[in-house]
Amino acid sequence: MAYDFASDNAAVVDPRVMAAITACNDGFVPPYGADELSSRLNRAYSDVFEREVMVFPVSSGTAANGLSLGAVTPSYGTVFCHEMAHIVGSEAGSVEFYSGGGRLVMFPGDGAKLGAAALDAKLKGFGPSFLHQMHASTVSLTQATERGTVYSLAEIGAIGEVARRGGLKMHMDGARFANALAALGVTPAEMTWKSGVDILSLGTTKSGTVMAEAVIVFDKALAEAVRFKHKRAGFLHSKMRYFAAQLHAYVESDLWLENARKANATAARLATALAATPGVELAYPVETNQIFVHLPDAVTKAFAAEGLNVRPWASSRPGLHRMVASYCDPEALVARVERALATVGKG
Amino acid sequence: MAYDFASDNAAVVDPRVMAAITACNDGFVPPYGADELSSRLNRAYSDVFEREVMVFPVSSGTAANGLSLGAVTPSYGTVFCHEMAHIVGSEAGSVEFYSGGGRLVMFPGDGAKLGAAALDAKLKGFGPSFLHQMHASTVSLTQATERGTVYSLAEIGAIGEVARRGGLKMHMDGARFANALAALGVTPAEMTWKSGVDILSLGTTKSGTVMAEAVIVFDKALAEAVRFKHKRAGFLHSKMRYFAAQLHAYVESDLWLENARKANATAARLATALAATPGVELAYPVETNQIFVHLPDAVTKAFAAEGLNVRPWASSRPGLHRMVASYCDPEALVARVERALATVGKG
Amino acid sequence: MAYDFASDNAAVVDPRVMAAITACNDGFVPPYGADELSSRLNRAYSDVFEREVMVFPVSSGTAANGLSLGAVTPSYGTVFCHEMAHIVGSEAGSVEFYSGGGRLVMFPGDGAKLGAAALDAKLKGFGPSFLHQMHASTVSLTQATERGTVYSLAEIGAIGEVARRGGLKMHMDGARFANALAALGVTPAEMTWKSGVDILSLGTTKSGTVMAEAVIVFDKALAEAVRFKHKRAGFLHSKMRYFAAQLHAYVESDLWLENARKANATAARLATALAATPGVELAYPVETNQIFVHLPDAVTKAFAAEGLNVRPWASSRPGLHRMVASYCDPEALVARVERALATVGKG
Amino acid sequence: MAYDFASDNAAVVDPRVMAAITACNDGFVPPYGADELSSRLNRAYSDVFEREVMVFPVSSGTAANGLSLGAVTPSYGTVFCHEMAHIVGSEAGSVEFYSGGGRLVMFPGDGAKLGAAALDAKLKGFGPSFLHQMHASTVSLTQATERGTVYSLAEIGAIGEVARRGGLKMHMDGARFANALAALGVTPAEMTWKSGVDILSLGTTKSGTVMAEAVIVFDKALAEAVRFKHKRAGFLHSKMRYFAAQLHAYVESDLWLENARKANATAARLATALAATPGVELAYPVETNQIFVHLPDAVTKAFAAEGLNVRPWASSRPGLHRMVASYCDPEALVARVERALATVGKG
Repeated sequence: MAYDFASDNAAVVDPRVMAAITACNDGFVPPYGADELSSRLNRAYSDVFEREVMVFPVSSGTAANGLSLGAVTPSYGTVFCHEMAHIVGSEAGSVEFYSGGGRLVMFPGDGAKLGAAALDAKLKGFGPSFLHQMHASTVSLTQATERGTVYSLAEIGAIGEVARRGGLKMHMDGARFANALAALGVTPAEMTWKSGVDILSLGTTKSGTVMAEAVIVFDKALAEAVRFKHKRAGFLHSKMRYFAAQLHAYVESDLWLENARKANATAARLATALAATPGVELAYPVETNQIFVHLPDAVTKAFAAEGLNVRPWASSRPGLHRMVASYCDPEALVARVERALATVGKG
Repeated sequence: MAYDFASDNAAVVDPRVMAAITACNDGFVPPYGADELSSRLNRAYSDVFEREVMVFPVSSGTAANGLSLGAVTPSYGTVFCHEMAHIVGSEAGSVEFYSGGGRLVMFPGDGAKLGAAALDAKLKGFGPSFLHQMHASTVSLTQATERGTVYSLAEIGAIGEVARRGGLKMHMDGARFANALAALGVTPAEMTWKSGVDILSLGTTKSGTVMAEAVIVFDKALAEAVRFKHKRAGFLHSKMRYFAAQLHAYVESDLWLENARKANATAARLATALAATPGVELAYPVETNQIFVHLPDAVTKAFAAEGLNVRPWASSRPGLHRMVASYCDPEALVARVERALATVGKG
Repeated sequence: MAYDFASDNAAVVDPRVMAAITACNDGFVPPYGADELSSRLNRAYSDVFEREVMVFPVSSGTAANGLSLGAVTPSYGTVFCHEMAHIVGSEAGSVEFYSGGGRLVMFPGDGAKLGAAALDAKLKGFGPSFLHQMHASTVSLTQATERGTVYSLAEIGAIGEVARRGGLKMHMDGARFANALAALGVTPAEMTWKSGVDILSLGTTKSGTVMAEAVIVFDKALAEAVRFKHKRAGFLHSKMRYFAAQLHAYVESDLWLENARKANATAARLATALAATPGVELAYPVETNQIFVHLPDAVTKAFAAEGLNVRPWASSRPGLHRMVASYCDPEALVARVERALATVGKG
Repeated sequence: MAYDFASDNAAVVDPRVMAAITACNDGFVPPYGADELSSRLNRAYSDVFEREVMVFPVSSGTAANGLSLGAVTPSYGTVFCHEMAHIVGSEAGSVEFYSGGGRLVMFPGDGAKLGAAALDAKLKGFGPSFLHQMHASTVSLTQATERGTVYSLAEIGAIGEVARRGGLKMHMDGARFANALAALGVTPAEMTWKSGVDILSLGTTKSGTVMAEAVIVFDKALAEAVRFKHKRAGFLHSKMRYFAAQLHAYVESDLWLENARKANATAARLATALAATPGVELAYPVETNQIFVHLPDAVTKAFAAEGLNVRPWASSRPGLHRMVASYCDPEALVARVERALATVGKG
């Protein structure tokens, strides 16, 4: 059967998550988060993050990013981010919409990562006495990044320090948060508020839920704006129990880490096979479940012959492709890839 | 077991809808609506509405109203609506948010219904030569209304005619669309575009889905704004198949009408029993599944004794309560209510 | 020569203001408020208000209201105001625009005045635990009111106290601030921050400038939002000196109070003559320079014969007219009015 | 006396403009543009532009750009512009504010000019089928540019052609429109709508008015959005006559062209002297009244000795300075510059 490496969002829902949804489909319960499952959500995630947090479920990563960034960025503010960030080219302006007129200020950075020094330099052009620019408000970094790499704790902490000194709020786009967590082997607390993160977009859809993402607020002072924007944008769902069920199942028994580790491991094995193939060149270190790789035609043809579909990725250098491993990739997939690559090696 | 008449959104998901979700949870499929189920959505609803329509799934009624009204109302525009409309007091300003600065202009009307003549009179204060007001842009009516009544086709058509003459777009908040449809015994086409409706918020959550609502666009010219706002607000879900599965199941085999008829019938039986009870007075005709009724203390006490919970409803006249019947109310519920009321009758 | 009582904004510019503009039209000076006149603006108005204030010049009252209310009201917030407020029906939604999606919550009140008790009652429907409404953010009162009456210090203070307890910011629309000041005989400090006002729209155009209004910020914490919105809306004018010249001239030698007293006095004399005329009825106490009066046809005809034009004012009771006295009304105007009224008295 | 080349907005008001203001300061006239001078504004500028146009006076260039771009760009739309455009770094986000959430998409271009081919290439990444980007809505070009160069009619027309094919609206930031007009020796019609421009920010402040800029609308269909945004932002001034007087005086007897020619001629003479000086290098062709020039320390010292102040301009290459010539520069100024430069030449 054909297999497509396009994205981890093409995967099914983890059976344990589906079971949680089915289990809660029983009887009348109060709406708008007043049910028992939803009421326990803050508590459950406060345990995960070792600190009192507030959880705002939404139905997509775009919503999580727009809502969280819109809540911490005034309408006249800027969000500093890497030029490859999801909020730049994949969300049709969620930040501009939720902030009501804010602006993204993007810059490059090795490994798809924002550098603390580059941010610091950028901030020099902004200041209370120079109104002609907009207000320097927020920095957003993506963990794992849009190219599959991860920020180390030291890197996040350094950005957090620049943010703190510059009066910026710090946001993390964690669409693949669990994959980064698994890769670093650190705690959720260390990767977020202990490194300076004020607010987090926590993705769960790519690792096993139907469509549950969450804004996690570490700083209570930010909650008011999130609560009202969350409501008026349409995410205070009446049947909130079905969202809560997913979010509980996601972290119970470390489901999230288990699934993330599986996807990361598959990617690592694929990367090893790819790197060993003549003419193939990894574009970025493979640190989580995304692979960005330059593939010669021979490889894409061999893949096609094996029923493996890979997509070209827009780049100034032709031949770049993205391959994303999923938590539910069949065990045999790696062998199929190795078989295809072997035919190239022989050529 | 205790029963609470608070709202139909406290109900479970219809087993047929849940089965559809489970059924689609199989294999990798393309994201963002490119899967097979999602691709068939426009076709399926075009059949239902006897006209080519575009369907934009969202996860709540607030999102549906905000998105649809925000797409047809410029930032400097007004939305004319009944003072009891959901967009007025229950959505924390979804219209102001999605329109980016629009305004609701509300007025009263018998039976919680906007009157064509009242709208016409209101429009006199707006006009191209009088800039000091805002632009007269849109009219929104709720079918069934917030008090459980329904607009007749003639009433909708009359408002549609005023809208057409005044250059207004016409929106219908159909959070309980199926209940109104069942009550009137007309077609979806007759109740919408044939009566002048340009865009519809179609609610399905209260009649059996998890959290699937949809914006239905009848006029292609409006689709561009809906598409972009839908995307940037965060409703172009990656795993769209799970939304599509619900929306397909909802109209297949007339599930929606069947469920709506059940809820309406339950409400009718409850209303009959209530109306026959001394001291009880129906505040509005019971035409769908919502009952607004003045209850003397004797009745609320008798209900409590039977484990039946009813909520007071904010009103200038004390004693008003709302009781909402659900499609999944148990058969025995009406008998319990009759039993409780009988004790009052004897008193 | 015909005379029209339509509005005080039809008047010319005070010669002393025009002289100040001409006087500053000399030589190259730094732009954007860095010139000497602009630099002294905060100092001059801090003296006037007996407290350190920040002054943001704008070119209209609509801009002053939108900017100040938009700066203190979040996009998800409400502004409580009287239903006759200028922001309701005369600014095409300036508050919704500058706040980026806020909402006006209006209510009635005798003498076109908001009552502290009514505001208090209104606030009961809003609260941190009830998200379905919007956030209760701001109260705005107009001094002098849209019907020419004035709030006493006690009335302003009582509203200020409700605002303080409810966590609201307090705004004053002072389009005719000087007229109210002259009427009450109190200090600018007493009528504003000493009574709880956080931010003021100070009108000067109606009392003698070309088109200079100002947002006066009493609370430094509010200044950041004002500064950025002021800039991006387009009011950080390059040739700021010409605005500063007007605003200095306005308060120097008490020009503003002198002009306001003149206009008020003219209105008082007109009111006396009107009240003494058979069939004429003052709709509101005449406390500043605006007169709202029910005029029989005989009077409007007599006015017409004398070349005096008065405009009907929209009202449920026909015959209401507004007559506004200006600081530059010719001395002979009152005599003309008296002459016209005398012919009616005889009739 | 010291002289500062910082900007042409440091200049005084042309005596003829001041005379027009003083002349109209006579008697009561209707407000909000209903006076005689304002009523003639559309007619006067329709004559200038050889087509029926609508004129919306505002008080700054930022307002003109924000208002015009916000009116033609939906909240989900992008404005394509040169990375040096005024809207990028000098208006604190006027476009994001007035559009309610739009985005600037910037790119480089020789001579501070946007190229038609570069725009065409950029548009490839946008399209109706690729929602993840925002909507491609508008192109904005600055004439004369931010570096003093001018687009030829052919260059404007080529961009206009790309815009037309791509469905973009076309905006011109004409803060120094007259300077460009004088430089090219073409008609206002040729430089705007005949080359594809839909809407124009017409600057007049730098060439002799107090603070009058105007949005000029060539396409009637765009006027509605401009009218309402113009009103609610606060630019429908009550005493509109004083704006109208300036805008009439500006084009009467070709005052604008006369002043622009003077400033351009002064710049040309300065450029000639600079280019002949050892170590001095013009960074851009001097085509209007702005000079961007690399100055060695010897020159800035010689200037200082002569009382001539020049400002460094942010650039990756140190030593860049901007010198702006004004219509009211004294005749002797060029001689002073030549005298200073002569001392360097000798060194």
